[in-house]
Order: sequence, then C-alpha cells, then structure tokens
Amino acid sequence: MILITDTTIITQNKKRQIIKNGAVLIKESKIVDFGPTKKLKKKYAKAKKRVIDGSGQVIMPGLINAHTHAAMTLLRGYADDMPLMDWLNKKIWPAEAKMKPKDIYEGAKLACQEMLASGTTTFFDMYWQPEPTIKAINEAGSRGFVGPLIIDLGSINIGPAQIEQTYNKLKSKLNSALELTIAPHSIYAVSKSTLIWCQRFAQRNKLLLHIHLAETEEEVKNCLKQHCCRPVEYLEKIGFLGDNVVAAHACWLSNKEIKILAKRGVSVAHCPASNLKLVSGIMPLGKLLKAGVNVALGTDGPSSNNNLDMFEDMKIAALIHKWNERNPAAADAQTILDIATINGAKALKMPNEIGVIDIGMEADIILVNFNQPHLTPCFNPISHFVYAARGSDVEITMVGGKIIFQKSHARITRS
Amino acid sequence: MILITDTTIITQNKKRQIIKNGAVLIKESKIVDFGPTKKLKKKYAKAKKRVIDGSGQVIMPGLINAHTHAAMTLLRGYADDMPLMDWLNKKIWPAEAKMKPKDIYEGAKLACQEMLASGTTTFFDMYWQPEPTIKAINEAGSRGFVGPLIIDLGSINIGPAQIEQTYNKLKSKLNSALELTIAPHSIYAVSKSTLIWCQRFAQRNKLLLHIHLAETEEEVKNCLKQHCCRPVEYLEKIGFLGDNVVAAHACWLSNKEIKILAKRGVSVAHCPASNLKLVSGIMPLGKLLKAGVNVALGTDGPSSNNNLDMFEDMKIAALIHKWNERNPAAADAQTILDIATINGAKALKMPNEIGVIDIGMEADIILVNFNQPHLTPCFNPISHFVYAARGSDVEITMVGGKIIFQKSHARITRS
Repeated sequence: MILITDTTIITQNKKRQIIKNGAVLIKESKIVDFGPTKKLKKKYAKAKKRVIDGSGQVIMPGLINAHTHAAMTLLRGYADDMPLMDWLNKKIWPAEAKMKPKDIYEGAKLACQEMLASGTTTFFDMYWQPEPTIKAINEAGSRGFVGPLIIDLGSINIGPAQIEQTYNKLKSKLNSALELTIAPHSIYAVSKSTLIWCQRFAQRNKLLLHIHLAETEEEVKNCLKQHCCRPVEYLEKIGFLGDNVVAAHACWLSNKEIKILAKRGVSVAHCPASNLKLVSGIMPLGKLLKAGVNVALGTDGPSSNNNLDMFEDMKIAALIHKWNERNPAAADAQTILDIATINGAKALKMPNEIGVIDIGMEADIILVNFNQPHLTPCFNPISHFVYAARGSDVEITMVGGKIIFQKSHARITRS
Repeated sequence: MILITDTTIITQNKKRQIIKNGAVLIKESKIVDFGPTKKLKKKYAKAKKRVIDGSGQVIMPGLINAHTHAAMTLLRGYADDMPLMDWLNKKIWPAEAKMKPKDIYEGAKLACQEMLASGTTTFFDMYWQPEPTIKAINEAGSRGFVGPLIIDLGSINIGPAQIEQTYNKLKSKLNSALELTIAPHSIYAVSKSTLIWCQRFAQRNKLLLHIHLAETEEEVKNCLKQHCCRPVEYLEKIGFLGDNVVAAHACWLSNKEIKILAKRGVSVAHCPASNLKLVSGIMPLGKLLKAGVNVALGTDGPSSNNNLDMFEDMKIAALIHKWNERNPAAADAQTILDIATINGAKALKMPNEIGVIDIGMEADIILVNFNQPHLTPCFNPISHFVYAARGSDVEITMVGGKIIFQKSHARITRS
C-alpha cells in the first residue's frame, strides 16, 4: 500500500471537490481511500505501507493525451515553419518511409518517458506498425491505446486484411493497461468500403476507432467536391459514426455537423498547438461543449507541436478559445482541466477507471510540486494547473498504483 | 575567469552563427572570447579559471522580458476568466490598493527568482513605488529597468513632481545593471501635459519611456471620440514618440500608425499570452516587422499570464501569428528567438551590451539542458528553444559574468 499524505487533492469528481491537507491510499492498482490526512493516518496507522510526503504538492488525476503519434518524437523539430503540404511531402513522409520497427520502438519509448515526466498517464496513439509501440508502452508502464493506421487510397495500401491479421496477432499480448484500437487515417486516405468495414470490425470486437476529421478547410472543400457533403455528414451517411469514435482535430464543423457528432456520441480530440502551428484551424470548443459533445485534449505528434506537454496544450487551449470567442470568461480553467482529464477518460471509455480521484478508480495520479516561485502564491490550484504550471513541475507519476516516474528528491519512506 | 566548454553556442550575432563543440570565456562581467572548445582550452590552458562542463547543453543570450509588472506575482491566479473591466475593478485594483512597499519587495523578489530560473536575465518593469522593486532586483542580481507609474487622470494622482522627486532620490542608488525609466501608464490614464512633460524629462535625463499603448479596441474607440484620432496618432501629434519609447501591447494599429512607429523608432513590447487571456487583441507582428519596427517580447504581469516564462511566450507568439496570418511560415523560430533577445536589447538601448554572444558583450547568458527526452533528438536548437523547451530547462543563468541561478547538478570545477 502507498499512502500519500499532507497534500492538496484535486479530485475532478462530480462536485469538483478540492481537499486540503488530504491523503490518498493506494492498494495494488487502485485508490482505496482518500480524505483528511489526520483521519487516514489514524485509520491506517498499523497497516504496512510506503508513505509519500506530499507536502507542498498537489495531487491530481494523470493527464490523458487523446491524440498523438508517439514515435514521431524522432521527427521533433525536423521540419518547422513550412506550409502543410510541403511539410508532409518534402519532409515528414520521406522520413517516415525510412523508419524501421526499431526506430518506432525508440521513438515511442522516448515519447513515453516524456509523457510520464510531464504528467500524462494515458495516451491514444495512432501510427504505423503497432507492435514496437506496444513494446515501448509495456516497458515504460504507461497506459496506452494504440491504433494501427489504415490507409488504402494513394500509394500506401494497409487495409482490412492486414489490420485484422495484426489485431489477431496482438490481442493476446495486450494487458489491462494496453488496448488495440483501429485507426482509419482520414476520409481522404481511406476508401468508403474500408471505413464501413472499420466500424463493423470495431463493433464486433468492442474497439475504439481513431480518425483525423475535418482538420483543414481543404479537407472540407475536397469532401464537398467528391461526396457533395461535408466530412461529418459523409461519415454519418455511411454509418461510420458512433460512441466508439474519437475524431482528432475537428476544426471545420458546421452547426449541423456538431449536432450529428453530439447525436452519435462521438468524442473529439482537440489539438490546439498543432492546429495553430500547421495553420489547420481552430476547433469550435464552446459550440461543441454546448451541444453536448465530449471534447478531450491531445498534443498531436511531436513533429507538429513540438513536445508532448499537456500542461502547455491546456494553456494554449484556454488562451486561443478566449480570443476566438472574444470572451475572457470562455474556456475557463476548470473546463480546460476537465478536457485534459475526465473527458479524455470518457473518450477512451474509461470514465469509471481513470481521470478522477475516487475510491475504486485506478491509481493513475500525479503529484505536482507547487513549492516553486512560479506557482507562488496559490489562490486556486486549478488556475495554476492551466495557466502557470509546466509539465516539468510533475514530481511523481503513478499508473495503476505503480510509481513509474519520480524526481530524485521525492520523499518516500516505509512504515 | 569562467570557461564554459563542450557546448553548442547560439550566438544571435549578425550571421546568426551556431557553434557546435564551442566554448565561451568570461572575464569579470564580459565575454572575452568564444570559439571551438579545443582551441579555447589550449589557448587558456594556463589561466586560472572555473570550468563549466557544458556538454549536452546549449548556451544562448539571456532572454529579455520587455514588459512586465514584477510585483504582480502576488496576484498570480488571484482572478482569472473574467472580463477585463470586472477583473480590474473588482479584483486587481482593490487588491493593489492594499499593497505596501514590503509586499512589492516580496512580489518583485519572487518575480526575479522565477525569471532567473527560467532564463530571463533582463526585464523592463512598470509598477507603483520603484524603490522596493529596485531593492529586490539588486539583491537578486538581475538586470532591470524600472519604470515608476505615472497616472494623473481619475482617482490616482502620481504626476511629474512626484516622479521627479523619486528620480532624484533614486538615481544615486542605481548601478550598471539597474536603470530607472519613466512609465506614463497610458493615454487614458495620463493627461496630455504630463505625457509631454514625460518625454521632455526623459530626453533631458536620457531615460526610456514605457507606456501601455493601443492595447484594446476600446482604447482606440475612446481615443477617436476624445481626440478625433487614433492612439499612436495622438502621441505623434503631441510629440511624445521617439526612439526612447517602448510601447507595450500595440494590438490595435492602423497601417498609418505602424508607419509612424517605424518613422519615430518606437519599440513595441509584444505580450501574446496576456493579450489572449484578457482578450485584448493580437499585435500585427508581420506588418510591424515588415515596416521596420523593432518588436520585443514581454510576458506582462503574472496576474494576466500567469507566469513569467519567456519560453512559453515565444511558443505562443509563434503559434498565434502563424494562425493570424494564415501562414505556417510566418513567425518562424529564428524571428521569434530574435524578438526575445536582440530586439529586447535594442528596445532597451543595449544592443552592444546584451542579447548577443560576442566578444565585448556583457556575459548575460543561459545554459539550457538539451539532454532530456522532450528535447531529443535535436535537428535545430533554434526550433527547440521556441517550440519544445520550457523555462525549467535552464540549468545556469549568468548576469554580467555572475552565476546567479544554477541547478544543483551543474558541473563546475576549478583549474
């Protein structure tokens, strides 16, 4: 058992309760108790446990990165400040074509290290060749959802047969912290018949679907030309949409499309830094939330961000939506923290397991060191998480009750 | 003497030279030599010196924060997500009214700690009561320009007499790293006659002027109503503008006003995070640079940012201007690093002393630890500074040859 004491707990539960001088008790993979430190110290005085002194620190649920391409750490800063199609055609795709499984493994390993060190405990990945990424996640101890890419239009042809084979091969290798999902790249890279197959296969095997959707205005224009409707309408028409779909980006949506996403229970993964850097667009956060769409937060790949720091994306999201809606009260700190935690858990169909600190939940939690100049004073820890903290303020990261990242000076004793 | 070896040097000199396996030699307050490590090690083999092993690290000029209100660290996160006038009237101004000199001292001290730890060696401050801020800067060892606020419209009346008195009292207390400037708050808080006095007093005493200008659309509307011209035109008309003026924000500018700023040699301090958070506006970076206006970078106060991390503001600036200009090639990494270093030095009239690593320049430099997952691999260090690094990656900060911030594990030996 691990007892974390003398800390402030941001529960992210339904009441958004904040507990000062709090303690959290972890047994095996789960949170088994939490409350005032005094009470928990007394209640578990005789239990054998490790004790983490959380004074000066704030505990919150681990962050959930709802859209990334982990192995692309290898292309971090490889090409910046370029128009999207030049960036893809001249730099990213030629480089990716040379990547071997070993490279993907090394890239994903690096990504796991970076994410764990900056408080991300779960991530939703989309990339070529899932096996080396799965190996990296397993070794790192992160919680990961890995969507092998499906592309069958253009020069690449990775279609149903190959994905089914991969799925059958890998399903026995998965564990409670790792899940395989299906990732048709986009409506412009995957054929209609394959998109339909993806949803059927996903339903049969209870899998999540991960797709880039309505990322650029060009995608919408081309879709209108080719299918006489907009991207979300197209997916609705062919029966692709459902509550197992996580749509990344979703910058260019009509009001009608927002209604469709809400009706079908689709989750959206918002990637503000990447969308701005590549000049893709700005996702209509306010409208989506108002319509009842579940919006989660992602970093996108490290080649268009260029890091995996969810704290940074939280701040950028808050700032850009305030400006975009011409309202400083928009995208308030609590809403933004929600999209980085609870909403991510909902998108990944784990709302009763991660994203909240409560009894029975998985112990996916982070301790953040507030005892630093840039987090002093502290009127409201939620404000600090969104507007003042950085990924590097994370002191300890725990996934399923295991400490898998810890700064050297964290104070852990046994009793 | 201090010799920093085996590092990558981002010189920011005219050629924007990057030196790999480089070394920098510092004697007293200045950089006296730099070049390949091998060469410098041999050349200075017999000199008594401290040696800093810079392997895995990148040296660059310290960042220059061209607009902040240091003591407002005390109000960090005190009020967020509120419309501007509510924020000021209901929260910020009432709280500031209660701040005593001791509070300002503590707030400024905290700000210096935060800035030094995140690579900012020089900052341009604007606040009430300069004396406690000067004390804090002196003790911290930062380089600071302190502009005591002038306001003589509305309920507050701090005008020429008081500022002249303050200036005469403090000028003997200043040193080479500290300068007093004059800070008329804005065109709406300072009368015409006082604005005119400010420029005359500044010219007589060779001082910089620091003013909030064209921050919000409302300021422009009110100025048009009251003075039948826009804010920059108004200041031009009364003879306020000159190359000793640093105008903070400058979000709302007509093309004519941009021309005036260029003609008068006014520098602009861009504060992207604060401008977005308070929904003030977006400064027209591309247009200003094209017109030849010197644009520097600032964080604004920690009550509207909510930190003083210039790395964060660099990234936010790059992202927002790419989007604003609908061009991913806009606000490229080099341009953004320039506004945070060289252009800041120009704004503060120190282009031959700070902002560049070169022989004869002040040794205001930072070492940034690139040996971390989120900065791996490194194709281009300039890209990393803007898009991937955080203030917390700074390992050593030096002002005028003195190490005034250093992480515990920095490797320094004597030879």
